[in-house]
Amino acid sequence: MKIVVDAMGGDHAPGATIEGVVDAVNDFHVHVAVIGLENEIIKELEKYQYPKELIEIIHAPEVVGMHEPAAVSLRRKKKSSISLGLDLLKQSSQYNAFVSAGNTGAVVSAATVKLRMMPGVDRAAIGLVIPTLKKFSFLIDVGANTAPKHQHLVQSAQMSEVYVREVLGVASPTVGLLNIGEEETKGSDFEKETHKLMEEKVKGFIGNIEANEVFSGKADCIICDGYVGNIVIKISEGLMESAGTLLKREIKKSPLAMLGAFLMKTNLKHIKKYADYSEYGGAPLLGVNGIVMIGHGRSSPKAIKNAISATMREVDHNIIEAMRKEVAV
Amino acid sequence: MKIVVDAMGGDHAPGATIEGVVDAVNDFHVHVAVIGLENEIIKELEKYQYPKELIEIIHAPEVVGMHEPAAVSLRRKKKSSISLGLDLLKQSSQYNAFVSAGNTGAVVSAATVKLRMMPGVDRAAIGLVIPTLKKFSFLIDVGANTAPKHQHLVQSAQMSEVYVREVLGVASPTVGLLNIGEEETKGSDFEKETHKLMEEKVKGFIGNIEANEVFSGKADCIICDGYVGNIVIKISEGLMESAGTLLKREIKKSPLAMLGAFLMKTNLKHIKKYADYSEYGGAPLLGVNGIVMIGHGRSSPKAIKNAISATMREVDHNIIEAMRKEVAV
Repeated sequence: MKIVVDAMGGDHAPGATIEGVVDAVNDFHVHVAVIGLENEIIKELEKYQYPKELIEIIHAPEVVGMHEPAAVSLRRKKKSSISLGLDLLKQSSQYNAFVSAGNTGAVVSAATVKLRMMPGVDRAAIGLVIPTLKKFSFLIDVGANTAPKHQHLVQSAQMSEVYVREVLGVASPTVGLLNIGEEETKGSDFEKETHKLMEEKVKGFIGNIEANEVFSGKADCIICDGYVGNIVIKISEGLMESAGTLLKREIKKSPLAMLGAFLMKTNLKHIKKYADYSEYGGAPLLGVNGIVMIGHGRSSPKAIKNAISATMREVDHNIIEAMRKEVAV
Repeated sequence: MKIVVDAMGGDHAPGATIEGVVDAVNDFHVHVAVIGLENEIIKELEKYQYPKELIEIIHAPEVVGMHEPAAVSLRRKKKSSISLGLDLLKQSSQYNAFVSAGNTGAVVSAATVKLRMMPGVDRAAIGLVIPTLKKFSFLIDVGANTAPKHQHLVQSAQMSEVYVREVLGVASPTVGLLNIGEEETKGSDFEKETHKLMEEKVKGFIGNIEANEVFSGKADCIICDGYVGNIVIKISEGLMESAGTLLKREIKKSPLAMLGAFLMKTNLKHIKKYADYSEYGGAPLLGVNGIVMIGHGRSSPKAIKNAISATMREVDHNIIEAMRKEVAV
């Protein structure tokens, strides 16, 4: 197995990316091809010890900025690490997957154009494993398709059911539609129609899930449009950050609180770790003919390492074949 | 000032509602007309001490269930506490506002039909004061209009700017559009077009606000469609609840953590209180010709009392007149 990793993707690239790659290589003995500005990659790699034969360096002379419009980068930067990395995945059976914490829009556009959609799927969607009180759920879409049609949501639901079963090992995943009420009569006409279609076409469909139940673990797969999914993720991030800031302010108020926080240190760390998406790897881009994993823009080395580990599970479980077989044409 | 309160609205009605009304009457010396099933109201009121002349009882023989479809309740239950309460507000200058923690859809529909929209506003929107790291922000719409047109969002923005200035006392409120990116090129065509219109027409407009900044206090007014706003509120509720459950689980793990939590007890309570929407009163329904306040379905007596207090501020500041003057026709 060899995984192509975009060295230039992410706010802390290439430093964080390379460190994550080295950790993954040392821990999992996986073959990685890092793609990006060769000089910078070599400079970073020199800092670490690792089995040289496990890391291949591929030069890509162009870099897509984190905030560049996707369409422009696709047209103008044909030799970026994203573009060339996906070309590799398409053209050579030697490479099994592509991981990037770079510009999400650029990765989605390039993957869609280069790898094409799998039969029966019209639009790509990004899934994300989120922590819940039970264990985890799979939220899809978190930002690829911000104005989906009914069938796109149905297809995302079908793909996620296969993904959670095959890659995450849940025997019979339940699938819920994120909506503003539990009853099937709730939401706009769009949600009502989607609900009806899902009842017909989606294995494991259990109906609407209200937003306050997302983190309770009521459904294994939670389906929503990319706009709402992105809001869900960012609201949660922002709220946990604000709660953390608030906690720190409170702790500073009194020596007793400080002592209390000290005694709870391990426990507070557990909660922080639990709520930290980077613990759960990256966000798989589903629907294209190839394994593509998108990392958080703020990816730490640990996040990169965990994204590689999650990608390895996808390759091991041959997720593309499994989806192709099950997603209705 | 006399405020009509729906005794039958909310999951814990009429018990919680009446207790909240009595607390408000005792603390604020405000006149309240409680409307609902007379016998039940009298039974609840008998439990408390209060100046009798401050509470008027009005009988409404029908009750709208919390999950009844709004259109049906409006047509079939013309003598519900919601219907008759809003009739009172419309027909008599003696009553200044209507407060209900009942079926939100039913309140919105009935208020729209009975009070009509104010000039220059096409659709009603529900605002909500949310706690942020700075102090608070005003999120609108949290559920009245789930599929708004551009102008509805612009009108909500204009109304919220007036509301936050006049009722909440922020000198020059800033207004942000909730979106999935900061740049004005982000989001679907719908968001881009809305952004453009807001730049032209909304006082204090500062551009897009990403969801992870909602709780940072970056904008005083945050504008979104009712579907997204409802998701934001419920995701936050659910996440805080899950975090609380997680904290309790952690505390049970060791005696040291238990001691730590004990020492931090007051501080943890502060945070809980800070994050509790009921501390901030209800959610004003803006856009109709009358002051209507919607309470959370799970409203406690304290939430009802705070909703009445927030409503009193609206009456004091003559918010309907202020909006009528400023919202463009």
